[in-house]
Amino acid sequence: MTAASPPTSSPFPIGRFPVPDLASLPEDIRQRIDAVLEKAGFVPNVFLVLAHRPDEFRAFFAYHDALMEKPGNLTKAEREMIVVATSNANQCQYCVVAHGAILRIRAKNALVADQVAINYRKADITPRQKAMLDFALKVSQSAHAVGEDDFEILRGHGWTDEDAWDITAIAAFFGLSNRMANVTSMRPNDEFYTMGRG
Amino acid sequence: MTAASPPTSSPFPIGRFPVPDLASLPEDIRQRIDAVLEKAGFVPNVFLVLAHRPDEFRAFFAYHDALMEKPGNLTKAEREMIVVATSNANQCQYCVVAHGAILRIRAKNALVADQVAINYRKADITPRQKAMLDFALKVSQSAHAVGEDDFEILRGHGWTDEDAWDITAIAAFFGLSNRMANVTSMRPNDEFYTMGRG
Amino acid sequence: MTAASPPTSSPFPIGRFPVPDLASLPEDIRQRIDAVLEKAGFVPNVFLVLAHRPDEFRAFFAYHDALMEKPGNLTKAEREMIVVATSNANQCQYCVVAHGAILRIRAKNALVADQVAINYRKADITPRQKAMLDFALKVSQSAHAVGEDDFEILRGHGWTDEDAWDITAIAAFFGLSNRMANVTSMRPNDEFYTMGRG
Amino acid sequence: MTAASPPTSSPFPIGRFPVPDLASLPEDIRQRIDAVLEKAGFVPNVFLVLAHRPDEFRAFFAYHDALMEKPGNLTKAEREMIVVATSNANQCQYCVVAHGAILRIRAKNALVADQVAINYRKADITPRQKAMLDFALKVSQSAHAVGEDDFEILRGHGWTDEDAWDITAIAAFFGLSNRMANVTSMRPNDEFYTMGRG
Amino acid sequence: MTAASPPTSSPFPIGRFPVPDLASLPEDIRQRIDAVLEKAGFVPNVFLVLAHRPDEFRAFFAYHDALMEKPGNLTKAEREMIVVATSNANQCQYCVVAHGAILRIRAKNALVADQVAINYRKADITPRQKAMLDFALKVSQSAHAVGEDDFEILRGHGWTDEDAWDITAIAAFFGLSNRMANVTSMRPNDEFYTMGRG
Amino acid sequence: MTAASPPTSSPFPIGRFPVPDLASLPEDIRQRIDAVLEKAGFVPNVFLVLAHRPDEFRAFFAYHDALMEKPGNLTKAEREMIVVATSNANQCQYCVVAHGAILRIRAKNALVADQVAINYRKADITPRQKAMLDFALKVSQSAHAVGEDDFEILRGHGWTDEDAWDITAIAAFFGLSNRMANVTSMRPNDEFYTMGRG
Repeated sequence: MTAASPPTSSPFPIGRFPVPDLASLPEDIRQRIDAVLEKAGFVPNVFLVLAHRPDEFRAFFAYHDALMEKPGNLTKAEREMIVVATSNANQCQYCVVAHGAILRIRAKNALVADQVAINYRKADITPRQKAMLDFALKVSQSAHAVGEDDFEILRGHGWTDEDAWDITAIAAFFGLSNRMANVTSMRPNDEFYTMGRG
Repeated sequence: MTAASPPTSSPFPIGRFPVPDLASLPEDIRQRIDAVLEKAGFVPNVFLVLAHRPDEFRAFFAYHDALMEKPGNLTKAEREMIVVATSNANQCQYCVVAHGAILRIRAKNALVADQVAINYRKADITPRQKAMLDFALKVSQSAHAVGEDDFEILRGHGWTDEDAWDITAIAAFFGLSNRMANVTSMRPNDEFYTMGRG
Repeated sequence: MTAASPPTSSPFPIGRFPVPDLASLPEDIRQRIDAVLEKAGFVPNVFLVLAHRPDEFRAFFAYHDALMEKPGNLTKAEREMIVVATSNANQCQYCVVAHGAILRIRAKNALVADQVAINYRKADITPRQKAMLDFALKVSQSAHAVGEDDFEILRGHGWTDEDAWDITAIAAFFGLSNRMANVTSMRPNDEFYTMGRG
Repeated sequence: MTAASPPTSSPFPIGRFPVPDLASLPEDIRQRIDAVLEKAGFVPNVFLVLAHRPDEFRAFFAYHDALMEKPGNLTKAEREMIVVATSNANQCQYCVVAHGAILRIRAKNALVADQVAINYRKADITPRQKAMLDFALKVSQSAHAVGEDDFEILRGHGWTDEDAWDITAIAAFFGLSNRMANVTSMRPNDEFYTMGRG
Repeated sequence: MTAASPPTSSPFPIGRFPVPDLASLPEDIRQRIDAVLEKAGFVPNVFLVLAHRPDEFRAFFAYHDALMEKPGNLTKAEREMIVVATSNANQCQYCVVAHGAILRIRAKNALVADQVAINYRKADITPRQKAMLDFALKVSQSAHAVGEDDFEILRGHGWTDEDAWDITAIAAFFGLSNRMANVTSMRPNDEFYTMGRG
Repeated sequence: MTAASPPTSSPFPIGRFPVPDLASLPEDIRQRIDAVLEKAGFVPNVFLVLAHRPDEFRAFFAYHDALMEKPGNLTKAEREMIVVATSNANQCQYCVVAHGAILRIRAKNALVADQVAINYRKADITPRQKAMLDFALKVSQSAHAVGEDDFEILRGHGWTDEDAWDITAIAAFFGLSNRMANVTSMRPNDEFYTMGRG
């Protein structure tokens, strides 16, 4: 299986903008897409939609990896919780569905993604994680009002200021992603809906 | 299998208020619960949470049935679309998860519930259904501003004024349900998450 | 005087939808309307507008009675305060005018209804009643964010969790009512404007 | 009857700030208060609350008169409609109650004030008056977005640009008044509640 | 130099409404304009736009002076901070630019006006001044919710209740001014942009 | 002059997080900072604040350059207009002040940055640029609702769909930047306030 395979069998367009022919893409981008295809078994549509703009593609995924792959106190599942909760607040179909799948897998929990997306206050997560999401939602919806008091609440739950940066950066980066996905009408791959539910 | 069986095996409470012992419930309520258990194989938690108040229970389900079981131009799947879209706008975990399951089954479509919940403008539904949901969301979020223009748009998509009443009543009734579920911390049954996913 | 009398002498339509001929209504609905006419001396338009849909009529008034006629710690005047305050937040003319009248009568106070409708924080009511209305408005406008802290504040004013359920259910039910009244353009009867003004 | 009479018999304070002794007020302010007492039979509390600051009192009432007493295409009742509709949007108890009374009298209509306050879209007023209130509410709630299109709609209803200035200035001036009344906890006189109710 | 000089050399209109010929204005208004021209070296456009309505002009500037020229605990710079912060929240170009200039001059600080306009929480001002602006913004955006708690916070920073009145009145008056400026498309004079930056 | 020079003479901290010693930075980051210092004569604080996280720094500036330095139909001034308008909506002091300076320089216009920041509807820009900013603000504040109608309006002003992508990406990227700057309390350099005003 290679990236030259048809990227999806869905009859629906994966976005409003032209999707480049994979063969025509710069080598580094094609390699990244091949790698994810190899790992996931399909190419998540965000790769195909953003490949329309190679320089933006590179910066986007470099930023993504800098936040989501780095070491730190936030577990990978917790990072995905931030993505899912803020993306539903921004009504971003692609990010809720795709990262909901990743959250289910990272957390080894079939329920938590839908719970966190819809109303994290009622999710099966810890008070510390709820404090993390309170902060993330405030960054996402009214960052201008974030202040020392908010950092203090995080500290009360054992989060460091470096963790606060991580939470902020993830909420901010996926705010960018939500806006790109909504305007480009980026479609979640069918595969995501059922991943990790079993 | 009867309603006297333990209603759920989840370790989490199904709500903030006491859940009545099924044996102690009035006969008509126990029968309703037995019937749903028979049909679904489990008792959706909304029955158990609301049984705390028998008179409200009876009125609630009478209203529900009057809207969701009646004949009319809206298909059953379309009625569930209204529930799912407005309930996510109201951040109601129970209603999005439970009625998302019903929508998947009614529509025989594993994807549409999550799509409609998160951003119905991007869902695999018809323009006529999007107009139905535009109207439903306006009823849900700013009914004071609904006017003749909004009815006119519905008519342009072939919806009658009786259909407009149906849309309104469903959006309004589940607005009630969303508020009850959020304040009582009503928990969706685990079974709903995977129903109809394929 | 019977329900066959002309229901109102106003030249304005009482709603956007057809009003059924009383004689054609099912017996139980006609009896309910006769009873209210007997008691009030006129038929509040909500009965006539909702009679367009007999099953919904029955469920609506059963729900209404289950909340507004039941015993409990909230006085009847306090229940009407919740209706009036939340209905003005939802810009519902019918409910503010009709239940404003009932509140004046129940509270034997000619001023309190307008005060509570416009800004309950400045009304001639007790701090305990203001806490009740703080909770009711939060249920009405952002139920997703109601949590243990809000229950704790109510308890600090001597309200039980059962009272919290009552407040929630009244705010939620009249949110339904507000949406129906706004979309159907339900007109308050002229009689309500002056009732209880002394 | 003179301004030295007790201004009100209500047991409730008329505002959060000290109310000056009428005898101690500057002559021109006392005369203005005497004149309104003579005409209305009581002293509306806005005169007493604002007399705490004589210079602001003078400017406030000069502005008021420049807008509400001037000739122009807006009838006096229409000006009061603007006050009542925008003041309820701002949750100002004093202005809705006091100017509601004046609107009932000016319009010789016992119902219109409550209708306009709660939801002017459903009031017994003309489409031209609804357009006037659409503009007024936009000025009151989001003046930054008012543009040529809004003027064009007014013109389509026969309103001139001078009328648009009048609508704007009334909505803006009572926005000031609403904020002063809310922060000072200015209490409407009991007399206003029943004036003009027939 | 007199008011008969061309008021501005900008090619852009200074507002949507006709600007009166200075020679035709009532004597007192012409004198006021002459005085400001004498002092500032140019005529701020607010004088020219409002001169279209002499009575409103007189009341407006009387109110302005009653608030901005009176003695009191708020320094003149602090009063301008209130104007600038609330006017940017209301997206009023004239008031932010013109009073930003005055704030820079009053505070002898080239940076503070832009800081306060955009996000006063991050400005080089004292905690006491931030509390003043918290209160002012609440008056500007949700005065209905201002209560005893807000006064208590002010007192904790050494502000008296008379100061609270001043803050309220300035926020309320410039709310009026913001709405007039936005609807009239009042243009800030070019001179204001650079004043006090050096 | 090298990056080893003190980056700013302001007594205020440039952000809430530790600022790395320039000498300790990875070579590529130090080179980027040296280059901007060479060109601008000072180091904009965004470089110093973000250098705390080298990988995020690299991705951030790669993304920035991919959007702001690329060829395209949007002029460089127009791109800065998007930054300034959306950043004031997000109350981001750093971005409004810093990019306001760049906008003045790019547009060779001393007034346009403040105008666009406060209320672009009243700015000295073309209708085509206002349509660009209408779209950008919608992306920034409610991207979930952007649809075909919005693209159609852009096309009516001669903007292509590729331009729509550019507008979207700039609004989205600076939404990220606004959130990082607000949470890190990133301080605009004093130099920006006066650049291009002359």
